[in-house]
Amino acid sequence: MTAEKESDEMVVTPWEVSGVVDYNRLVEQFGTKPMTRELLDRLERHAGQLHLQLRRGIFFSHRDLDWWIGMHEAGQPVGLYTGRGPSGPVHLGHLLPWFFTKYLQDAFGADLYFQMTDDEKFLIHPELSLDDTVGFAYDNALDLIACGLEPERTHIISDVNHIGHIYRLALRVAKHVTFSTIRAVFGLRDSDNIGIIWFPAIQATPCFIQSVREGRNVAVLIPAAIDQDPYWRMTRDIAERLGFYKPAQIHAKFLPGLGRGGKMSASMPETAIFTIDPPEEAAKKIMDAFTGGRPTAREQRELGGDPSICTIYAYHYYLFEEDDGRLAELERECRSGDIVCGDCKARLAEAVKRFLVDFQRKREKARDSLDQFLFK
Amino acid sequence: MTAEKESDEMVVTPWEVSGVVDYNRLVEQFGTKPMTRELLDRLERHAGQLHLQLRRGIFFSHRDLDWWIGMHEAGQPVGLYTGRGPSGPVHLGHLLPWFFTKYLQDAFGADLYFQMTDDEKFLIHPELSLDDTVGFAYDNALDLIACGLEPERTHIISDVNHIGHIYRLALRVAKHVTFSTIRAVFGLRDSDNIGIIWFPAIQATPCFIQSVREGRNVAVLIPAAIDQDPYWRMTRDIAERLGFYKPAQIHAKFLPGLGRGGKMSASMPETAIFTIDPPEEAAKKIMDAFTGGRPTAREQRELGGDPSICTIYAYHYYLFEEDDGRLAELERECRSGDIVCGDCKARLAEAVKRFLVDFQRKREKARDSLDQFLFK
Repeated sequence: MTAEKESDEMVVTPWEVSGVVDYNRLVEQFGTKPMTRELLDRLERHAGQLHLQLRRGIFFSHRDLDWWIGMHEAGQPVGLYTGRGPSGPVHLGHLLPWFFTKYLQDAFGADLYFQMTDDEKFLIHPELSLDDTVGFAYDNALDLIACGLEPERTHIISDVNHIGHIYRLALRVAKHVTFSTIRAVFGLRDSDNIGIIWFPAIQATPCFIQSVREGRNVAVLIPAAIDQDPYWRMTRDIAERLGFYKPAQIHAKFLPGLGRGGKMSASMPETAIFTIDPPEEAAKKIMDAFTGGRPTAREQRELGGDPSICTIYAYHYYLFEEDDGRLAELERECRSGDIVCGDCKARLAEAVKRFLVDFQRKREKARDSLDQFLFK
Repeated sequence: MTAEKESDEMVVTPWEVSGVVDYNRLVEQFGTKPMTRELLDRLERHAGQLHLQLRRGIFFSHRDLDWWIGMHEAGQPVGLYTGRGPSGPVHLGHLLPWFFTKYLQDAFGADLYFQMTDDEKFLIHPELSLDDTVGFAYDNALDLIACGLEPERTHIISDVNHIGHIYRLALRVAKHVTFSTIRAVFGLRDSDNIGIIWFPAIQATPCFIQSVREGRNVAVLIPAAIDQDPYWRMTRDIAERLGFYKPAQIHAKFLPGLGRGGKMSASMPETAIFTIDPPEEAAKKIMDAFTGGRPTAREQRELGGDPSICTIYAYHYYLFEEDDGRLAELERECRSGDIVCGDCKARLAEAVKRFLVDFQRKREKARDSLDQFLFK
């Protein structure tokens, strides 16, 4: 779905995503496995339907997903882990894997440990205080809850406030991880602060916390964007030495921003749709977005547009056009020039506004149940 | 008091003490200040008497002690901080600064934050589990309590169990400390684990925790052996950036072991007297100790001994002969050959046995009040 410009060199690490992302090359580079028809069939069997993000290859790669499903099929307990770095409001790019996580929770009856890395965000951002990042953690939790997760099976961890529950486990992890490893995996330097160097130990703990609490090994699956993969490679390397299973992973593509190229990023607020954006403001961002259309409506009608580089089409594709038939029709209309960008944007803007009104209502309601979701 | 062998190169760091320690040179090297008559007079004025460890120059150096006393004299709150790495039983070398800390607590009415670094000891020692080090923390706390500290003014911190109280503060410290600094100050390497690299942030927190809890800056003094100085140099460097006072320090010499040279060390149990040693066993260690005597009693009577290299004399000096007059008499008797090593050892062994019987009684009694001393 993203723009293809061969000149832009691809960089995908936990701390930078830039250039044109070639997902097939990432699978090779990272040594992960592509999703297969057989895996999709098994997921569909358990869930009763195939999630849009599976049908459309948004979750496109994995490590040990077959094993994780197999554990469930063998009657073993399975868990889920994902998280969020709470440094500001949540945008649609963040929601993407959370919606998918809810689908997995429903399909597998799995407990979800959701980590708010309020310690990491404090350590990384000079301008943020602990009150800021912990505040964002609780605020962002409302977004997670609004995705429809189950309170009985969801455990939201604030690293800072729940450190008493995870410090022992983090120490056990840290004892097996050297600075050399961290330097290689995360690109850290001698000039980085000692909190950031320590943090990967904290980040690993939700892979194992359910096993510790239940006193038996639980197979854990991490749904997350592919740039987070290095964290779990390190965790996988040490898991068995600590007596735990290696966490499995399922990797998502990045939701593009509304500008030309790049993933949706909170650091470019004009190209990101935040869940707390007033719907009209979000609609305006969409009307200003970069498209695959022609300079004029007339040229568009004559020559057609290019949905493969269009952010508007991407939003229909990733999130807002659930119906595969209607999506195919939209693509055809674009390429043939039957629809012009203004109309296509207006159609998306309407869908986004409807979504935000509904989501913001759920988000406000989440305040009442927040406490039930917090890690205890 | 320690043996003088010019060939043994002096090494004094938090992770190694070896060679012949020249304390005057340490004051120069570390850039600390020697204790002065004026400071001793001020301490005596507040305490009502001058502690043996001050009279005999065992606490021999400081940083900002004059300022710390001045804060107390100006009616400002003052605090104390010391600690212990709980990797095994406590020996007399550990007790030395704790007795002195009790003297300071009484003299200045100061709160003491006492840190049990059960996280650090777990991270350093491959063979120790968290249950081991946390277990030692609570066991060693009995020794601290047996030194006579006040329950209302003493707060024993288990890093592992009380992390919830100190993690925020540790993160604030960590944000200002780079790996370059840690590498330089503590001699850490790329092959060290990321827990050990993080630990100095935890170690700094008791310098500031009273200020945080009371919502006002409290001047803190750290009584500890001189080898711990680098920890506090790092802490002093960042204190003001966090809005706290730099911690003051008062530095002790090392209690020698019972063997030839070196400080008392738990890793050489035959040369260390543990508080849980059966008194008769401790007495036997003393009878086997290295002395400054002559090969035979006859030569001793003719030529006299050398108390300056004698571990037995050191124990009288550091701990067991409170009376300065009797100590001077003992030194004279040794040098003149009026006393032979066997008799001098027997005299110390008796004193140590009496001490252990009494201390072990207090130590058992401490189980009843342990909970009152724990950090809440």
